[in-house]
Amino acid sequence: MIAAFRSKVDTAIARVEAMAEAERRAIFTEFDPVRISAEAEALIARHAAGEKMALFGTLVSVKDLYDEAGQVTAAGSRLLSDQPPASRDAVGVARLRAAGALMFGRTSMSEFAYSGVGLNPHHGTPSSVLAAGTIPGGSSSGGAVTVGLGLTDAALGTDTGGSLRIPAAANGLWGIKPTQGLIDDSGVHALAPSFDTPGPMAADPDLLRQMVEVMAATALTDATTGPYTLAVPVGAFTNGLSPEVEALFAGDQARLRAAGHELQPLDLTFLGEAIGLNRIIVAAQAHRIYASHLTALETAGDPRVLSRIRFAETLSPAQVQDALAARAQIAARFDAAMAPFDAAIAPTLMRMPPTIAEVEADFDALNAAMLRNTSLVNLADGCALAMPTAGAGGWSMTMLVGRRGTDARLFAAARAYG
Amino acid sequence: MIAAFRSKVDTAIARVEAMAEAERRAIFTEFDPVRISAEAEALIARHAAGEKMALFGTLVSVKDLYDEAGQVTAAGSRLLSDQPPASRDAVGVARLRAAGALMFGRTSMSEFAYSGVGLNPHHGTPSSVLAAGTIPGGSSSGGAVTVGLGLTDAALGTDTGGSLRIPAAANGLWGIKPTQGLIDDSGVHALAPSFDTPGPMAADPDLLRQMVEVMAATALTDATTGPYTLAVPVGAFTNGLSPEVEALFAGDQARLRAAGHELQPLDLTFLGEAIGLNRIIVAAQAHRIYASHLTALETAGDPRVLSRIRFAETLSPAQVQDALAARAQIAARFDAAMAPFDAAIAPTLMRMPPTIAEVEADFDALNAAMLRNTSLVNLADGCALAMPTAGAGGWSMTMLVGRRGTDARLFAAARAYG
Repeated sequence: MIAAFRSKVDTAIARVEAMAEAERRAIFTEFDPVRISAEAEALIARHAAGEKMALFGTLVSVKDLYDEAGQVTAAGSRLLSDQPPASRDAVGVARLRAAGALMFGRTSMSEFAYSGVGLNPHHGTPSSVLAAGTIPGGSSSGGAVTVGLGLTDAALGTDTGGSLRIPAAANGLWGIKPTQGLIDDSGVHALAPSFDTPGPMAADPDLLRQMVEVMAATALTDATTGPYTLAVPVGAFTNGLSPEVEALFAGDQARLRAAGHELQPLDLTFLGEAIGLNRIIVAAQAHRIYASHLTALETAGDPRVLSRIRFAETLSPAQVQDALAARAQIAARFDAAMAPFDAAIAPTLMRMPPTIAEVEADFDALNAAMLRNTSLVNLADGCALAMPTAGAGGWSMTMLVGRRGTDARLFAAARAYG
Repeated sequence: MIAAFRSKVDTAIARVEAMAEAERRAIFTEFDPVRISAEAEALIARHAAGEKMALFGTLVSVKDLYDEAGQVTAAGSRLLSDQPPASRDAVGVARLRAAGALMFGRTSMSEFAYSGVGLNPHHGTPSSVLAAGTIPGGSSSGGAVTVGLGLTDAALGTDTGGSLRIPAAANGLWGIKPTQGLIDDSGVHALAPSFDTPGPMAADPDLLRQMVEVMAATALTDATTGPYTLAVPVGAFTNGLSPEVEALFAGDQARLRAAGHELQPLDLTFLGEAIGLNRIIVAAQAHRIYASHLTALETAGDPRVLSRIRFAETLSPAQVQDALAARAQIAARFDAAMAPFDAAIAPTLMRMPPTIAEVEADFDALNAAMLRNTSLVNLADGCALAMPTAGAGGWSMTMLVGRRGTDARLFAAARAYG
């Protein structure tokens, strides 16, 4: 077991070192083989001393938004890259380390986690592992690629409007936006505190659940085995789908019905119509965080991100307050609407991931399209599990959505899906 | 479990399809997503019907030397590429399929499995996953790369002079040359029947052992836990090492001693001095197999391989008979010499893997260097387990060597190493 772990680490390090510089930089914002090897040896020493560690042998990459003691949390930006190193690990990282996971490099992201496609002009943009030249999804882009390439078992990311589920979709992974608050976000750099949610991505659903359990320090137990009652949203999530996504989603529904689950339409028009609230709230909260840096960002920042932050300058304080109040009402209404259901089923993305070139030519529209469905879950204060879709060629285009606190049920229902 | 398996397959297929054409062709001689998906669904149906399958969920690539029903066994050549498809699976493949493994494409190799570096002018040569531009090792080159890239869990290869252990070394894997005869080689295209041995490579030693058990239809049980008595060869395996390999091997010995194992020198000069016998026997046997094709190979073959086959034309029948007789004596002597030991420890390669460019410039010397240590095990009719080496940056430069029939002890002793 020890030799196998050592060789797994050594081989993964060697694969990263064998990458072309530009490819490595587009995936890892920081990669220190000496540090990783030393941490691996420390874990081996604990194992040799008899410590039982649930995640021993698990390699986890860390989004550049999580504090790690001794490392700079730069949030994928140049602005923050000369900040002092963090003095301690984020809570999620500390719990994973205690459980025996090995942190394997810090990963690239959309600047400040403020976009859903994964482009980054500072360190470069990796391709999806499923299609050269296609976006990796964002904002947790590099992390998804590390899992997709088999370099790590899991990746840490955050999800403010879809930043865990979009890269999971674009790299064929499982990704969860947990219920906000399930995982303590101390030590995770904020973008919009009303929505920010830390969580993992993984290639395996059992590991994904175990990661959440360790990060949350709580068991996600759900003994149900179905059949489940699943909502099929109307007026949100399912409008405006591309023909390909429409067909995949029809297949999802047919398969679930054939497996004996009960699918019922659920009118979520109130949610679909409120899609504009996210943009207001996120911009306003991000603007507060970066207010003193806007001039510096004119030269050091990604203009696409700065433009999204500056959108807040068009908003009155009343508009922001109204948006927050409306959001609270919508979340309560969603919670009530979902009460009769185990979960809802929905497409993760309204269209297949575009190419990097397409996004560079039409950022605003394609970024909004990538975020549309996922951000509705953040708006509704729910939880959601993105999972690979049958017949989709490896892409994770299907999402189970639950009301807040039903994370364990999502994992149970995911078994019913497949 | 089903959904996770489906998505694992879909994602691996998508990653292969995302490769540039030249890269894919250098790894896979045949890759049919439709066939793979259909086989995956058939496995899922068996699983759903309640069948217990030890290797369900395991993806295995198949060297283009193994018969698969309906596929052409081309042995990495143009010569055999228009042969009729095989009518049945090789025994090892059939047993793996029965145990639930999914065959995931046919992989590239040195033509006819006749060289140790992995170059192939017909379909191209992939790089080691550990270093761009470095040889993948051969002859089971493409298979090792599929495991190294995390596309498959294991790969099937063959080992006549090192063809499983050299690619394992060059891609950071575990690779075993089992005792000849442990795995029935029916349906595996021959090169030199005195030495040819089918077997697997994997990233994980437990999976590797399980693969051998399934392919051999026998359990490899060994309850010993050490300390072990290990031979350190003198006069074979350890002469002429590069300084880097010398240092790694010194580290191996120090580590094993520190762990309480007994290391004793063992004079194997008789084996080391007989290194020339392999070349005679392999060339003579290969020449018999390809005698009627030599003219065709002048235009359709790899000249490096043809030159190795034609070496047989310089040999008299008496020389070949003498070589076979000498080999039998050497094997018996090795068997007796190893009796007091659990295993021997030796460097897998006498030098680190060279670059593809270096080999193209100096094929004969570098090919001989790659094969030197591994082929001694074939000559001695033993078994050997190549494993990742502590401190070697991911390369599998260490080999445990046993006398014939001690395969299970090698896996037990490997745990002591790590």
